[in-house]
Amino acid sequence: MNHGAGGEIMQEFIAKHIISHFPKVKFEVPLDSFDDSAVVDDVVFTADGHTVNPLFFPGGDIGSLSVAGTVNDVSVMGAIPIGLSCSIILEAGLEVDIVDKILESMGKTAKDCNVPIVTGDTKVVETGKLDQMLICTSSIGRRSPYMDQNLATASQYRVVDSRWATDNNVRPGDAIIVSGTVGDHGIALLSFREGYGFDSEIKSDVAPLNGVIEKGLKVGGIVAMKDPTRGGLANTLNEWCVKSNIGMEVNECDIPLNNGVISACEMLGIDPLNIGNEGKVVIACVPDMADEIVKNLRAHSLSRNAAIIGYAVESKTPRVVLKTEIGGRRILEPPTGDPIPRIC
Amino acid sequence: MNHGAGGEIMQEFIAKHIISHFPKVKFEVPLDSFDDSAVVDDVVFTADGHTVNPLFFPGGDIGSLSVAGTVNDVSVMGAIPIGLSCSIILEAGLEVDIVDKILESMGKTAKDCNVPIVTGDTKVVETGKLDQMLICTSSIGRRSPYMDQNLATASQYRVVDSRWATDNNVRPGDAIIVSGTVGDHGIALLSFREGYGFDSEIKSDVAPLNGVIEKGLKVGGIVAMKDPTRGGLANTLNEWCVKSNIGMEVNECDIPLNNGVISACEMLGIDPLNIGNEGKVVIACVPDMADEIVKNLRAHSLSRNAAIIGYAVESKTPRVVLKTEIGGRRILEPPTGDPIPRIC
Repeated sequence: MNHGAGGEIMQEFIAKHIISHFPKVKFEVPLDSFDDSAVVDDVVFTADGHTVNPLFFPGGDIGSLSVAGTVNDVSVMGAIPIGLSCSIILEAGLEVDIVDKILESMGKTAKDCNVPIVTGDTKVVETGKLDQMLICTSSIGRRSPYMDQNLATASQYRVVDSRWATDNNVRPGDAIIVSGTVGDHGIALLSFREGYGFDSEIKSDVAPLNGVIEKGLKVGGIVAMKDPTRGGLANTLNEWCVKSNIGMEVNECDIPLNNGVISACEMLGIDPLNIGNEGKVVIACVPDMADEIVKNLRAHSLSRNAAIIGYAVESKTPRVVLKTEIGGRRILEPPTGDPIPRIC
Repeated sequence: MNHGAGGEIMQEFIAKHIISHFPKVKFEVPLDSFDDSAVVDDVVFTADGHTVNPLFFPGGDIGSLSVAGTVNDVSVMGAIPIGLSCSIILEAGLEVDIVDKILESMGKTAKDCNVPIVTGDTKVVETGKLDQMLICTSSIGRRSPYMDQNLATASQYRVVDSRWATDNNVRPGDAIIVSGTVGDHGIALLSFREGYGFDSEIKSDVAPLNGVIEKGLKVGGIVAMKDPTRGGLANTLNEWCVKSNIGMEVNECDIPLNNGVISACEMLGIDPLNIGNEGKVVIACVPDMADEIVKNLRAHSLSRNAAIIGYAVESKTPRVVLKTEIGGRRILEPPTGDPIPRIC
């Protein structure tokens, strides 16, 4: 199960057993950069498979999740999603009511974020050969009209190397912003599934973030973005450190966390920074623009708790140092996997 | 199972329980046209889920199938595929050797047809929650450089309404070409799976057709193309009749068929025209160009048996009339489903 959990074990598996078999081709943002989307001939392109269990959970369902997750992967590149695809695989005998509810949720989420579902496919497999249903979505996007101005603003402060908000584009001094509380999605799923009872107070954050991201890009100065899904915030920050060849210093007490998530994580002995999110974006920006970006994000209902959590620093080894509330320092390791399976 | 079988039952299910939930949005080739791909902002975009059982079969495997099927759906619009995505869902415990073999096959097929795999996703579900593995692919494409000249040639003979090779673009008088023998894929799968023994002589035709289609477009005069997958040739021809509001007269004896497929279909009591193909394209073109197109297709190894099988005609009701070998006439009904499940 760790081969699908979003951490280091998955990345090694994908590099060794999947990408190694594919022909190497040069394009603007290639497959082996492991960014959220590829960029081919100026089209941003991404794909996701969704296996969340159960299909319905507090705050969302596999339908809203599949639309939001894919919209977010295009948006964090600095692009506007212009179309979604959905491939639906159904287990024979699944109630049509369930199909209707999930597809209605997909349609509603697509409508809310103004990205049409334009193509798709439906398959049915025999009863017992699949756990109810799977949805694979993909999306295409165009460069955001705010992206050039956004990067021009960043360029007033330092050299910017990438045309897109890619993982390798963070530099020492950049501020790191998170758009809200982390850990909600994974903990809501785990609690609901296992009957821990935290789900009355913790809901999944599943939401399309194209609107939030547009708010940020309009301010300007953003150089990298990523939605911290499988592997959580710890994975995102460590990926940036490795790909951008930097270190990071993050203030633990500045990371937004819901009280319910704190309680649940303490009880279960898991780190909320390793838990997958589905409605949060992590932003790296030139420091002079950070306050203005946070202010604008807080004006959006999906990012009211946006906060600067730390800064990129020069470092011989790519690593994230967490400054703890009591004044200590510890290294935030990249997770080997997400501790909670099948949350997306 | 018929809800996923590609025939009338599936189309009704998709219209009622899937597309009805999605917001209606206008774009050049929309979702509810049920074409092989959508066209959004001049990007051709398609998606497919692959559930073939077993994973390896005579002539191919789920890896080659997933690349070829999606490349073909872009190509039949009159486009060049420029990138593929793959979402892979694995059952925990599946042997890594199997994963390697299938991914190697995907990579080889992608290389052979010169379409890079540019983005993707990997998920793992618990043992018993999935039958080994699924692959969902999607693709983006650009208008073929030969498409404008191709349609200009057609326009010398009649008015052409669509910029793309869409299902609603066939007109009375157009010639109908099939690029080779039909039924091979489904019969190879069925025979191999059920141990009928025909698989020694019948192999799946799974192949990417972008090269074949380019040969046709270079000649000119092509107005519609479709790959006759689920539901087979009968489904393709009937779809064209309904969407183009025409009839069709097809000569049964001109439809290319392998002897092994004929024997198997006779024994099993199924119609080869209802069987899914994975390496064939059906082409509608202005009649004056038909011979030249067939000649050029026959020069390509994947379409050596290309043939004109009939013509579109004026008709009050959209229907396909099959002229039988003994001089009779029967209506070729649209299939309710593909008689063989899980072949793609």
